[in-house]
Amino acid sequence: MTVHAYAAYEKGQRLEPHTFDFGAIGANEVEIKVSHCGICHTDIHLINNDLGVSSYPLTPGHEAVGEVSEVGSAVKSLKRGDRVGVGWLAGTCMACESCLQGHENTCAAWQPTCVGRPGGFADTLRVDHRFAFEIPKEVSSETAGPLMCAGATVYTPLEDHDVKDGARVGVVSIGGLGHLAIQFAHARGCKVTAFSTSATKEAESREMGASDFALMIDPDAIAARAGSLDFLVTTTPADLPWDTLMGLLRPRGSLCVVGLPTSAVQFQAFPLLAGHKSVVGSNTGSISGIKSMLHTAAKKGVRPLIERHAMSDVNTAIDRVKKNQVRYRAVLVA
Amino acid sequence: MTVHAYAAYEKGQRLEPHTFDFGAIGANEVEIKVSHCGICHTDIHLINNDLGVSSYPLTPGHEAVGEVSEVGSAVKSLKRGDRVGVGWLAGTCMACESCLQGHENTCAAWQPTCVGRPGGFADTLRVDHRFAFEIPKEVSSETAGPLMCAGATVYTPLEDHDVKDGARVGVVSIGGLGHLAIQFAHARGCKVTAFSTSATKEAESREMGASDFALMIDPDAIAARAGSLDFLVTTTPADLPWDTLMGLLRPRGSLCVVGLPTSAVQFQAFPLLAGHKSVVGSNTGSISGIKSMLHTAAKKGVRPLIERHAMSDVNTAIDRVKKNQVRYRAVLVA
Repeated sequence: MTVHAYAAYEKGQRLEPHTFDFGAIGANEVEIKVSHCGICHTDIHLINNDLGVSSYPLTPGHEAVGEVSEVGSAVKSLKRGDRVGVGWLAGTCMACESCLQGHENTCAAWQPTCVGRPGGFADTLRVDHRFAFEIPKEVSSETAGPLMCAGATVYTPLEDHDVKDGARVGVVSIGGLGHLAIQFAHARGCKVTAFSTSATKEAESREMGASDFALMIDPDAIAARAGSLDFLVTTTPADLPWDTLMGLLRPRGSLCVVGLPTSAVQFQAFPLLAGHKSVVGSNTGSISGIKSMLHTAAKKGVRPLIERHAMSDVNTAIDRVKKNQVRYRAVLVA
Repeated sequence: MTVHAYAAYEKGQRLEPHTFDFGAIGANEVEIKVSHCGICHTDIHLINNDLGVSSYPLTPGHEAVGEVSEVGSAVKSLKRGDRVGVGWLAGTCMACESCLQGHENTCAAWQPTCVGRPGGFADTLRVDHRFAFEIPKEVSSETAGPLMCAGATVYTPLEDHDVKDGARVGVVSIGGLGHLAIQFAHARGCKVTAFSTSATKEAESREMGASDFALMIDPDAIAARAGSLDFLVTTTPADLPWDTLMGLLRPRGSLCVVGLPTSAVQFQAFPLLAGHKSVVGSNTGSISGIKSMLHTAAKKGVRPLIERHAMSDVNTAIDRVKKNQVRYRAVLVA
């Protein structure tokens, strides 16, 4: 069966229609008829080969949702017609220490959904069935996509670092990831402070659950919040004032980096030691973590704010993502 | 009663005899007749005002051991004649969130034993009774001193970060802190790799419990251990190759900084995020942590290797510490 997709034929180029055939389905694979796919900044990094891992033609897309259309011979947990979502990972080795501990998201042999294989900007997607997650009935297909990558990315560290009800949580940068971080932190009972360079995001941040808002570009606003946070998540690829962020933490607080900065992270050691602070990294989620994330999103009403674009308008949508015009996630509709 | 101590009268100077009187004892204080006091590198930093917190005359010493000679009116837990040890802290506020959570070591109003008050290079020491810890009978007074600071400093992060039996632990720099880190990690069942710039430390590292030894200055030795450690403790104030150290960690591994580097800590973010790694700081211990440390040291036979100097030879001993000639801790004997 011919798959109709969109692909960059060369580094940095606009996407063009692209067709290919998957061949016979693997025993552990499922095939998904894609109905929606979110656009993540990482898709643009891949088009530009910013991470040095791209091969062309490159079909982006790792926030895909759709119905299972075919299952491999070993698949027991899914059947045709099931509505599923796929995130950053299409498969892992299922044999290393990380996988065997249930931390598939640190498998060294992980297979990202759109690195070296075609992703979700297509009518059809194939992945290992263990990385196709049933979408709870409460969650619409168009809002499920951004949960699969952006949602998992910000939910995972809250779980992994046991951020409790009542914890004082900060979110730096209110975009695709940040607006979900506010909601997930609020949903678990945290007191959330949103940090943004744009005053125009205050009202929506508060609607999403933030009880406090601070302008990153206002030194007085930052100084007033020194030593106030147990957990501070940075969701932007911009280089950040790391010492200032460390100063926002309470004793034993953690600075959690999920937005990948291009320059080195650097900070003075004394506050780290004296305050027993930590700097932690996180990306995507494990299988059990993504299931937990979807359950929480369904139960607590955590939903991305999206704008819809036809899959055929993918380049227009990408342009809006590049210009940071999207509030807060663009979703392609098949 | 006149206290006979040794003090630096000015920044960076050799210690001279110094006398003073404590005045009336506070309700929560205990007075200790000092029998032994270890010498920590931080004492030398204080003499030199490297931390910017010194006042002169400055009597160093925060690894003190001795017998309780007097107790304040509110003290119930100690009595005259009890053998106690005192570490970095002489008191905290006992009212802030950190103190009320049992994390006195992150109290913002902490009172270090020899900052703004006379420390243990003296015949008599006064501290809040809650920071004078009974020394288990198995532990000699001359070996108890270095446990109080160096021991607590390396034991605390193993407890706080729940480093388990079977964990793969690295120790960078085998000195006063490092040689106790090897022992405490080995005592809890960890597989310990010692990292040193000196090949002459291999034999003793292995005797203390390391099952592996690597020369920090041998790139092949470091490369061979990439991705091998769950927890890596750095115990030196030297600037370190942070990216290389991060590369030694397994997925979800932690780099724990207890030696205070003079320059900023800096590393590339990608391995932190992709590996869900963390960089954590720690210093000294809480009240419950120090009690646990002393219990463990007594039960498991963790002891510093020391060299003894008469208190009156304090300057000779300090010179040896400055020249890194001590293996592994100098202890002054009253």
